[in-house]
Amino acid sequence: MTVTAAVVGASGYAGVELFRLLVGHPEVKLVGAYDIRNVGKRVSEVHPNLRGIVDLKIAEPDYVKIGKQTDVIFVATPHRVAMKFVPKLLKGKARIIDLSADYRFDDVKVYEQYYTKHESPGVKGVYGLPELYRAKIKRAHLVANPGCYPTAAILSVAPLVKRHLINIEHIVIDAKTGTSGAGAVPGELTHHPIIDANILAYAATTHRHAPEIDQELSKLAGRNVETHFTPHLIPIVRGILSTAHVFLRKPTGARGLLGLYRKFYAGEPFVRVLEELPQVNFVVGSNYCDIGFELDARSNRLVVVAAIDNLIKGASGQAIQDMNLMFGFDETRGLEAPALRP
Amino acid sequence: MTVTAAVVGASGYAGVELFRLLVGHPEVKLVGAYDIRNVGKRVSEVHPNLRGIVDLKIAEPDYVKIGKQTDVIFVATPHRVAMKFVPKLLKGKARIIDLSADYRFDDVKVYEQYYTKHESPGVKGVYGLPELYRAKIKRAHLVANPGCYPTAAILSVAPLVKRHLINIEHIVIDAKTGTSGAGAVPGELTHHPIIDANILAYAATTHRHAPEIDQELSKLAGRNVETHFTPHLIPIVRGILSTAHVFLRKPTGARGLLGLYRKFYAGEPFVRVLEELPQVNFVVGSNYCDIGFELDARSNRLVVVAAIDNLIKGASGQAIQDMNLMFGFDETRGLEAPALRP
Amino acid sequence: MTVTAAVVGASGYAGVELFRLLVGHPEVKLVGAYDIRNVGKRVSEVHPNLRGIVDLKIAEPDYVKIGKQTDVIFVATPHRVAMKFVPKLLKGKARIIDLSADYRFDDVKVYEQYYTKHESPGVKGVYGLPELYRAKIKRAHLVANPGCYPTAAILSVAPLVKRHLINIEHIVIDAKTGTSGAGAVPGELTHHPIIDANILAYAATTHRHAPEIDQELSKLAGRNVETHFTPHLIPIVRGILSTAHVFLRKPTGARGLLGLYRKFYAGEPFVRVLEELPQVNFVVGSNYCDIGFELDARSNRLVVVAAIDNLIKGASGQAIQDMNLMFGFDETRGLEAPALRP
Amino acid sequence: MTVTAAVVGASGYAGVELFRLLVGHPEVKLVGAYDIRNVGKRVSEVHPNLRGIVDLKIAEPDYVKIGKQTDVIFVATPHRVAMKFVPKLLKGKARIIDLSADYRFDDVKVYEQYYTKHESPGVKGVYGLPELYRAKIKRAHLVANPGCYPTAAILSVAPLVKRHLINIEHIVIDAKTGTSGAGAVPGELTHHPIIDANILAYAATTHRHAPEIDQELSKLAGRNVETHFTPHLIPIVRGILSTAHVFLRKPTGARGLLGLYRKFYAGEPFVRVLEELPQVNFVVGSNYCDIGFELDARSNRLVVVAAIDNLIKGASGQAIQDMNLMFGFDETRGLEAPALRP
Repeated sequence: MTVTAAVVGASGYAGVELFRLLVGHPEVKLVGAYDIRNVGKRVSEVHPNLRGIVDLKIAEPDYVKIGKQTDVIFVATPHRVAMKFVPKLLKGKARIIDLSADYRFDDVKVYEQYYTKHESPGVKGVYGLPELYRAKIKRAHLVANPGCYPTAAILSVAPLVKRHLINIEHIVIDAKTGTSGAGAVPGELTHHPIIDANILAYAATTHRHAPEIDQELSKLAGRNVETHFTPHLIPIVRGILSTAHVFLRKPTGARGLLGLYRKFYAGEPFVRVLEELPQVNFVVGSNYCDIGFELDARSNRLVVVAAIDNLIKGASGQAIQDMNLMFGFDETRGLEAPALRP
Repeated sequence: MTVTAAVVGASGYAGVELFRLLVGHPEVKLVGAYDIRNVGKRVSEVHPNLRGIVDLKIAEPDYVKIGKQTDVIFVATPHRVAMKFVPKLLKGKARIIDLSADYRFDDVKVYEQYYTKHESPGVKGVYGLPELYRAKIKRAHLVANPGCYPTAAILSVAPLVKRHLINIEHIVIDAKTGTSGAGAVPGELTHHPIIDANILAYAATTHRHAPEIDQELSKLAGRNVETHFTPHLIPIVRGILSTAHVFLRKPTGARGLLGLYRKFYAGEPFVRVLEELPQVNFVVGSNYCDIGFELDARSNRLVVVAAIDNLIKGASGQAIQDMNLMFGFDETRGLEAPALRP
Repeated sequence: MTVTAAVVGASGYAGVELFRLLVGHPEVKLVGAYDIRNVGKRVSEVHPNLRGIVDLKIAEPDYVKIGKQTDVIFVATPHRVAMKFVPKLLKGKARIIDLSADYRFDDVKVYEQYYTKHESPGVKGVYGLPELYRAKIKRAHLVANPGCYPTAAILSVAPLVKRHLINIEHIVIDAKTGTSGAGAVPGELTHHPIIDANILAYAATTHRHAPEIDQELSKLAGRNVETHFTPHLIPIVRGILSTAHVFLRKPTGARGLLGLYRKFYAGEPFVRVLEELPQVNFVVGSNYCDIGFELDARSNRLVVVAAIDNLIKGASGQAIQDMNLMFGFDETRGLEAPALRP
Repeated sequence: MTVTAAVVGASGYAGVELFRLLVGHPEVKLVGAYDIRNVGKRVSEVHPNLRGIVDLKIAEPDYVKIGKQTDVIFVATPHRVAMKFVPKLLKGKARIIDLSADYRFDDVKVYEQYYTKHESPGVKGVYGLPELYRAKIKRAHLVANPGCYPTAAILSVAPLVKRHLINIEHIVIDAKTGTSGAGAVPGELTHHPIIDANILAYAATTHRHAPEIDQELSKLAGRNVETHFTPHLIPIVRGILSTAHVFLRKPTGARGLLGLYRKFYAGEPFVRVLEELPQVNFVVGSNYCDIGFELDARSNRLVVVAAIDNLIKGASGQAIQDMNLMFGFDETRGLEAPALRP
């Protein structure tokens, strides 16, 4: 079976990454590239790495029409934009995977507090983290692909939270992202002379990925969890390293914790539980989330580190993993590439 | 048909890149990883990007034996080492692709001038640049995979040299490489605090890739060509940008030159002739060589720029392209991945 | 008045930085460069940025002799080495500033737990953080210059700890350093192909700067403080960003906290309290420590960020600040250079 | 004697660098910061590295007035802008150092070919390269500070051109610059995700610094010289490495060439002639131009490499060197800082 796929939001980094991965997916026929920018240009003019590979022309979308004609549509437009047209897409047969935040929140009030007034609050998506919601994703018509930071942060502490092993008042998540997370539009903070030899914290207590992390950990815990999330920008292009500092409720050995993680993620094709701390170097270019930890038995602090490629497991790769689930393909199809390092 | 493949020299960057590409090649079964370093470790311990992907154990090679048992052997050992054991490998059925310089020279004296005394001077390889030697590569038992700089430099000016369009006394090739070209062993010049904000020329008139470039351009020209080659080290990991400054023998229009390049490389799966100057950004992670030029009609100078990933088209990818030719596979098999950018 | 100064440990990064700063100090005459490596070479051969500027020859030290002849000696040798010869230096008139950890600990047992058996446990240094120990430093014969991470970490939370405003059970310090912190000797983790696009946590619960931070914060608090310290290596050359995640014991407004910091550091020439989060970009090349914070009033978490140049305020610049105090010079003498950005 | 100095063009990278250097210059009182952007802000708000150091407010300039009141005015506005107001500045007593290209050309037609119609073609500046025009600079009222590439390129080959030692038809200059050369305004090519792992040639045959190089080399040669200049952008912030590939007219030994360079630059405070190839690493942060070469005796090709900090010797440092000459200060005053490396 071959499914037809289209991308709305062809100009950005999530878009180019979707094209790059979809063109190598044996079960997919890429049939449309849509955007309101760069209309009439070829995908390969906007993204020259795809020269000779994806030469589709970018068109302005007729949402209802493409919703009717396409099997799966990836929405890679900015936050606040998807909600304007996803209901139109859903009128057709297309199953939708939205990479923005617009349908990630169970409670639309949380969305509205961090983003803007929601224009289609009645439409609900399934949170597209396969490790937590595999069964629901398979049946979903609308998948809300998780944010990059939440993917790493949630996976890093999910086993601990689910098993009530840690003090949920003091979950500190100190995350570091590469500059591709800021998107394709040049700005002050991603100007090379500014960031190349720099590091900075931003939105240190107010980042909009925090409520997304809290929503999912709260469901795992069965009670309200408020993590303490602080992101940093560092001078790498791809990759997130998410360092969780958590406190065990009672002394637990490293061996037991390793067993817990291995069991929790047993059979997961894209989570690798390591016996050492992960590095982004070994996941960039792949869909893997590597997780490792170090225990300070003296203070019962556990440092759990997760590494992902923010554009793959943190965005477009995870979207394709979701698509594989939705259409019954092997979950790893099109996502087999190992990390590209050095 | 599936061929069995082994890699001798499993610890270095050419080695890890071979594993990464071979494991995704549908016609190949990876059966051996050999080295004198790291014996007993798994490939994935040495190269953690391959965790769960290539978990073969590294063994010390019995050359005669593996030569008998394996269909194709990639030799990714340092220069001066391959020549010690390639004759043993060749006693078996295995077809050999050597990524070192040991069998690249038609005239062993040139090799000995730039490297060391040759220990198997009677063994001859086919120079593994498919764009020039496709037919010979198909039949070869021993392929000498080209150097990284020569791949970019030769491809950038081959059409001009072959057609006698340029002054062959003044071919200046000013090349720039990323640090992975220096290999996996830490050293002074690749120490991050030294190179991260630095650029330098090295072996400015004496680099051993110069005679390799000259050998191939001389054969194309039908007369002796001595290029002026100067390499630089820049703070990127992967990628070579090779800038050729050449002088046309008589005025020629840009359109005619573009036509010449397109014709010369017509049908080549991995050479993209651009109407603009290439960037390493758009080839890194892929087997492409992008070529573009700019003509200064006033002075008849032509600046021809070629960009490759030094570890793929400049090493392991090209080796697999050669293997595909040798075994009758589609030439692009296992090498379809587009560049990974941003 | 001019003082004569010598550096023991001329080959490393703290050494070159001492030379660079001392040569521009109007009250100092640089009279000696000592090391057991590179003996006989000029400083400018080992550190070519100093060509024509510091052409002193490196000699093997006769400790007793130089201790007698020199006014101030900077010890920039590795940990575990200084303690072997500092007692000899102290036999003379020289006042000593040791940049290693050997004399930083009040309790030699702590040193021995994290480093090695101490060979001169009876010798005591003054902890050379001027913001806490200015008066003692002025009179000291032996100053133990603080570690790079402790400088940033201690300064970032000292006002809070001193005033008992935060929960001292849950002080998480997540720090990030550039690669120059690893020193001048090439190694695996600072090999450019490995680290250039990478980030990693290391010694996540066991770093030997942790007890140094704890010692100083405990003295400020008047009770035992055990912080939770995790360092990371990022691909910049210079700079530390230290992010402290702390929990207020009772609700406090941002304005009050800003006032507290400003008062605590009033008159300090090298601490800048900002109304925004600092970036390493704006301190690298200078002796400044920039401090800023963000308050999450909802959860009473405070994120306090400090930025320093690890080789200046985190090492050699602070050593010269100490020297200025010891010899009665203007504290900022020789340290006036602003950060060099972009 | 103290001179009063002002900067017009306070917001850009040449501006911040002028402030940084002027504030440390013992003979200068910084009295004005002017721009049409950021009016009313403090310099240190725009350039946070200068917090507490240069807190002057940026004002809109009244050119006639400041020309009358200030001893020296540095013009750090973009090309095409300076020519609009420099004539007004010159009505007063102020001596002017213009860092733009507007007054660099002897022949206004050349300017107009590469830039735009000149609005004050009758005003003439002295080309501010001290190594060639020291005497004229001392007397100049208007100095046209050289471009960054021309500074490195001209100094690298001046001795050879002046002595007619090389073939002037085939002077290839392949230069590489850091991203600060592109200025403070974010753009596509300096967007971190695009350039961080990239290198590219741009304006490969048409860069507007080419005619500036040619003008100066022609005057040195006493006949028309047209060099072949190609710039590249590389992922470092500061620094230019300029590689000249030239062909000797007759065989000359390396020793003789070294002697020639040393004699030509004897007594020059900021040119260091090396016996090895220079690296930007050892000049960044300083006003030095390091020059070294390698001779290929076989082909009579000489590779001459020059390294500068593009913002210091290539812009603001050289401007201050010119000011020192104009006002009779020690030429190195305020420019003594060694390079900051690692």
